[in-house]
Amino acid sequence: MEKSYLQIARAAYQPKLPKALLGPVKAQEGAPTQSVGNQEEIKALFPNTYGMPVIEFVEGEKQELPPFNVGVILSGGQAPGGHNVISGLFDGIKSLNADSKLYGFILGPGGLVDHKYMELTSDIIDEYRNTGGFDIIGSGRTKLEEVDQFEKGIEILRELNIKALVIIGGDDSNTNACVLAEYYAAKKYGVQVIGCPKTIDGDLKNEQIETSFGFDTACKTYSELIGNIQRDCNSARKYWHFIKLMGRSASHIALECALQCQPNICLISEEVEAKAMSLDDVVTYIAQAVAKRAEQGNNYGTVLIPEGLIEFIPAIKKLIAELNDVLASPEAQNIGRSEQIDFVKQHISAENLAVFNSLPTSVARQLALDRDPHGNVQVSLIETEKLLSAMVAAKLDKWKKAGKFVGKFAAQHHFFGYEGRCAAPSNYDADYCYALGFNASRLIANGKTGYMSIVKNTTAPAAEWIAGGVPITMMMNMERRNGKNKPVIRKALVELDGAPFKYFASRRDEWAEKTMYVYPGPIQYFGPTEVCDQPTCTLKLEQAK
Amino acid sequence: MEKSYLQIARAAYQPKLPKALLGPVKAQEGAPTQSVGNQEEIKALFPNTYGMPVIEFVEGEKQELPPFNVGVILSGGQAPGGHNVISGLFDGIKSLNADSKLYGFILGPGGLVDHKYMELTSDIIDEYRNTGGFDIIGSGRTKLEEVDQFEKGIEILRELNIKALVIIGGDDSNTNACVLAEYYAAKKYGVQVIGCPKTIDGDLKNEQIETSFGFDTACKTYSELIGNIQRDCNSARKYWHFIKLMGRSASHIALECALQCQPNICLISEEVEAKAMSLDDVVTYIAQAVAKRAEQGNNYGTVLIPEGLIEFIPAIKKLIAELNDVLASPEAQNIGRSEQIDFVKQHISAENLAVFNSLPTSVARQLALDRDPHGNVQVSLIETEKLLSAMVAAKLDKWKKAGKFVGKFAAQHHFFGYEGRCAAPSNYDADYCYALGFNASRLIANGKTGYMSIVKNTTAPAAEWIAGGVPITMMMNMERRNGKNKPVIRKALVELDGAPFKYFASRRDEWAEKTMYVYPGPIQYFGPTEVCDQPTCTLKLEQAK
Repeated sequence: MEKSYLQIARAAYQPKLPKALLGPVKAQEGAPTQSVGNQEEIKALFPNTYGMPVIEFVEGEKQELPPFNVGVILSGGQAPGGHNVISGLFDGIKSLNADSKLYGFILGPGGLVDHKYMELTSDIIDEYRNTGGFDIIGSGRTKLEEVDQFEKGIEILRELNIKALVIIGGDDSNTNACVLAEYYAAKKYGVQVIGCPKTIDGDLKNEQIETSFGFDTACKTYSELIGNIQRDCNSARKYWHFIKLMGRSASHIALECALQCQPNICLISEEVEAKAMSLDDVVTYIAQAVAKRAEQGNNYGTVLIPEGLIEFIPAIKKLIAELNDVLASPEAQNIGRSEQIDFVKQHISAENLAVFNSLPTSVARQLALDRDPHGNVQVSLIETEKLLSAMVAAKLDKWKKAGKFVGKFAAQHHFFGYEGRCAAPSNYDADYCYALGFNASRLIANGKTGYMSIVKNTTAPAAEWIAGGVPITMMMNMERRNGKNKPVIRKALVELDGAPFKYFASRRDEWAEKTMYVYPGPIQYFGPTEVCDQPTCTLKLEQAK
Repeated sequence: MEKSYLQIARAAYQPKLPKALLGPVKAQEGAPTQSVGNQEEIKALFPNTYGMPVIEFVEGEKQELPPFNVGVILSGGQAPGGHNVISGLFDGIKSLNADSKLYGFILGPGGLVDHKYMELTSDIIDEYRNTGGFDIIGSGRTKLEEVDQFEKGIEILRELNIKALVIIGGDDSNTNACVLAEYYAAKKYGVQVIGCPKTIDGDLKNEQIETSFGFDTACKTYSELIGNIQRDCNSARKYWHFIKLMGRSASHIALECALQCQPNICLISEEVEAKAMSLDDVVTYIAQAVAKRAEQGNNYGTVLIPEGLIEFIPAIKKLIAELNDVLASPEAQNIGRSEQIDFVKQHISAENLAVFNSLPTSVARQLALDRDPHGNVQVSLIETEKLLSAMVAAKLDKWKKAGKFVGKFAAQHHFFGYEGRCAAPSNYDADYCYALGFNASRLIANGKTGYMSIVKNTTAPAAEWIAGGVPITMMMNMERRNGKNKPVIRKALVELDGAPFKYFASRRDEWAEKTMYVYPGPIQYFGPTEVCDQPTCTLKLEQAK
């Protein structure tokens, strides 16, 4: 592998560990736990993995352990630090017994089902320490949900004499890790399953999980770019930059980037929904800020847009729901592409028709015509950043004719996602991920299953971090998915009464009117600690409460 | 100004200077120079600034100088390091006499004409050291070309008692700086004009100018992102990423990013033109690489596309030229928008009609309908990255039906430009720009006008850099612009027999077929010197020859 200078220098970085994990550990167990909702139902579904205590590792006495084999899977979208979870896990099991082995399943959960794997030896691990990406074994989106898959899995786990499986994934993957843990426990197959909280989206967090790994690095990478764009914006003084940010439904990434960069505008989907804003309300909000800055001669600015915004506008949400129903009807299946828009217009309610007709033609066409493999509207394809800027331009044109707007409006568009998902992990994520992986080896050695590896108190120096495990069932409730009630880990959206949003809300009017951009610059790995070792603003605000 | 941790830490960085500039200097003069082309014509146009010698500064004896005032202008598109040119210039004039003053003209050359300026005091300068952007005084695209403008300029220059004007800009701005120098010299106005070579595009370079400032930082920022995308691409293994890169006509940025990242494909406009490739040739070249990788089961990859590509395809170039003519005809002015496409089709040659009809409808519409304020086709609006991926997809579909392609093809699109133009300068650009600005003060003190500030030997440690000045006329030739012959600095495109392209050409087949991505990561300011202080690959290859 040809390597960049930074890759070579960074390979030598030794991630920090919590003090408790530096030597032999003992599992300190708390009281039995309950799920966050639907306790009776969850308990009934998970008789073997429900009610277990939260665990914290503290200094213990040295144990002799026989060698044991572990499997690891990377599940779902990439997030910075995945390779460090694996290298931490590797170092962890080797520290317990040098003859222990680590197997990686190839291209996600599908690798377990299809028996595609490789042994991860120290030569391989050393190539990937402190690097971004999931390319060491690849990732995939196969969902482990069916008994068939679990049974195919146990075949290869037995063949490789694997004692425990570590699944690195987001909320859904960890939910499924728990279902698998429960299944193997119920069947007494003797294989433990441990989860690790991964996702750049930041929506896998709760009382027990401070943050999901990758969020820190991805937000810092996007903030670097937003800062650069803001500096350009403030130098050329002629464009409004509309910047969409990946992050699925939750607006955590947009909010964190706003806290880091102080843009003129940042939309928060959760607020749009809570206030039942219409698309026109959102457009008006932006146009008003543009007009106000124009009065001061400032015909430029920045707007951050969370990827999921469009689905959070209640009127659009209703429209999409009806479109999905209408287009799924048997009658719709025989309609040619050219007639679909008319068909849609004839079959949706008057209320939704009004919303549909208010959309720019290109977006209306996209909603009516482009479907995902399940036949659903592909909301992620809608270029919200262009939709909004076009609608803002149209509104400002009207206002100009009415003498209510005196400036100029020209827009540039950006969408950041793939630019940050595989960045080399920041010091924070490098340490956090390594600790999560290393800690997973301790959960395994202590015979735990159905647990997620957790590391807390991460706004303090790494030595003071607290490592342990949380029963996955503790984070679950029942939710409706694809028409069925399912036990799932409750997704964390932006809380409007949480400290990060409240701080943002207290500053945003000033940011909108004045030009108060902050330029975070690129992630630094080697400089002064106040530059290199900052957690996210979100985490600092949450922990300060 | 609220600042990021990096901004605060980076403010303390003291850029390095060439050894000769650390103390008093003497101007060592070479032989009289000639322009690179059209020598008689250029000489006639620049009687006062033609034929001057190249200058190199060497150690000299301390001179006492009276205080003198200098004006500075940022011209054209942003490039990382502009603030360091200004802080170097500031420190340079203050080192000669602490009572000297620096004035900045606001929002580009227009500030000189409109008498908008501010004094740049040490308090202000200190806020901007080692930062990206041109926001200290802003930039603009007004062209200084007319006697009226020069006369408006001299009014304010006299009012502020300014002895010399430093214009920081690209090839056109430096050409105009020389025209202004000549005019003021001819009129004996006593104001010197000095240029500084700025542009991320890398197209302002020649025997005297190793590189334009900003190219280093911008390419490293784009390469960070391309590397991150490649890591994602190599982890998810399901997308072809089509990445367009800013850079106007020249492909220097795309080439440098390719050298840094080793993508599967990088198109070079200059090669496309030299080989007279058609759009279909380009599409076939990409599709063949996709098909070859698919045979190995690798349905993913990266394609770098220079911004100016479409104009370099000879057939498209001809079509655009004829479209511009046809749509500029008086007859065309009375045609409604809806009839323009038919009008175009009826009025272009059969050869161009065939090319026009081969384009995807959306692009054909764009070419026929969207015009810039001068009535020209807006080539920069064409989303070449989407155009190419759509045409590759169509070709692969055909090949699939014919049994010649067995894989899957799904594309993602990116366009990077504003993301890098205002990044905080790398150590290289921070030092190089500071030296260029500091050196400009020495050219002024030595009474020079019509010179560009130059710093050479920059692949060596900064102490060994060579600073001096080159007469701008030396870099000129006559070129046809807007129907007139004009003296201009010859633009540097990628040379197909140059070392950077030849190295690229020797490796690209291997990069296309295998997966040999390099991940440069973000610019580092504080780490080991081999990480922080590398010049571009382009410069290293050019200097190694």
